[in-house]
Amino acid sequence: METLRLYDFLPSGNGYKIRLLLSQIGMPFERVEVNILKGESRTPEFLSKNPAGKIPLLEIEPGKYLAESNAILIYLSEGTEFLPYDRLLRAQVLQWLFFEQNSHEPFIATSRFLISILGKGDQYKEAIEQKHKSGYAALSLMESYLQTHNFFVGERYTIADIALFAYTHVADEGGFDLTQFPAIQAWIERVKAQPEYISITEESKYCI
Amino acid sequence: METLRLYDFLPSGNGYKIRLLLSQIGMPFERVEVNILKGESRTPEFLSKNPAGKIPLLEIEPGKYLAESNAILIYLSEGTEFLPYDRLLRAQVLQWLFFEQNSHEPFIATSRFLISILGKGDQYKEAIEQKHKSGYAALSLMESYLQTHNFFVGERYTIADIALFAYTHVADEGGFDLTQFPAIQAWIERVKAQPEYISITEESKYCI
Repeated sequence: METLRLYDFLPSGNGYKIRLLLSQIGMPFERVEVNILKGESRTPEFLSKNPAGKIPLLEIEPGKYLAESNAILIYLSEGTEFLPYDRLLRAQVLQWLFFEQNSHEPFIATSRFLISILGKGDQYKEAIEQKHKSGYAALSLMESYLQTHNFFVGERYTIADIALFAYTHVADEGGFDLTQFPAIQAWIERVKAQPEYISITEESKYCI
Repeated sequence: METLRLYDFLPSGNGYKIRLLLSQIGMPFERVEVNILKGESRTPEFLSKNPAGKIPLLEIEPGKYLAESNAILIYLSEGTEFLPYDRLLRAQVLQWLFFEQNSHEPFIATSRFLISILGKGDQYKEAIEQKHKSGYAALSLMESYLQTHNFFVGERYTIADIALFAYTHVADEGGFDLTQFPAIQAWIERVKAQPEYISITEESKYCI
């Protein structure tokens, strides 16, 4: 097998999902930094790899690319302990992954991007207020679920936890107050206690 | 196996994805109409089934529920011709499903909802303008891809086509001009020509 190559941007939560999983699987990979703030994901060369102009992007073999962080998570976790084999449990993992991309990331990740990555919180004040409303709804739903569950699917750590952890644990960087969500905070600690955990801007030791 | 029960709202594109697939698989199901405009997806009873308060919701067996339209599509298409078995092709299906939920549906479906379902296009003029910008970016990406492909994955009709078709073919109801996308229009005709195709507000003959 060719070495996997990950086109990535270190502060990105979507990129972090892949780095964290690869670290926990123990799979070597090459990381290529794409500075999205300098337009590096919008060059003709990068767009020829991913027409959507987004990272993370996984080069599975030379010239074969896979986009969308949660699709990459499923592809890489197939056959590992991080994706259940049981049909109904797998479906529940997928349910949370789509929830993350449709009801969580567009509000929680983008608030962090505007405030902490771009540093333009004042300029986008009104947009952020809108995003906070929907983002808090997503956090409340997670809080309620985690009051009676240790992890999101099958009471085991899976890629559903990785996908939701990526932007939830840094939601404060987007102006969200996590202190009102004790069950989420306890779950964050459970995720951080997993073997081979790495933090969001930490290089995996499997990164070559 | 118990009969599947689908909690649904007939004008919903997300609900239509499931109805279309079930019709094409030829699987009987019971359909329960939930009028989201009358708050029927926000009652305590419905929230006990799906805390996100959204349709479609699939009751797989009594008391076991699966939410998120694209997770339901994957669950139901497993083992059918509508989901490839090959690992890379499956990953490409997932890539398009996440693209649909993150970069397409939030702009194209919601514009249609505000204009044609709620009838409040004037009131939300500014929000719709924002959504049109991102929605046209998604349509342009699809157009470009379809200029050299008949379908989204593996040159065969799959759930990636179903997921993208649902809101694309009624994008005009959200104020999008599809006449500038000839490759999308040709693909829409190819989808409509598939066996057991049903239109968005048509009951499946397998609906009991």
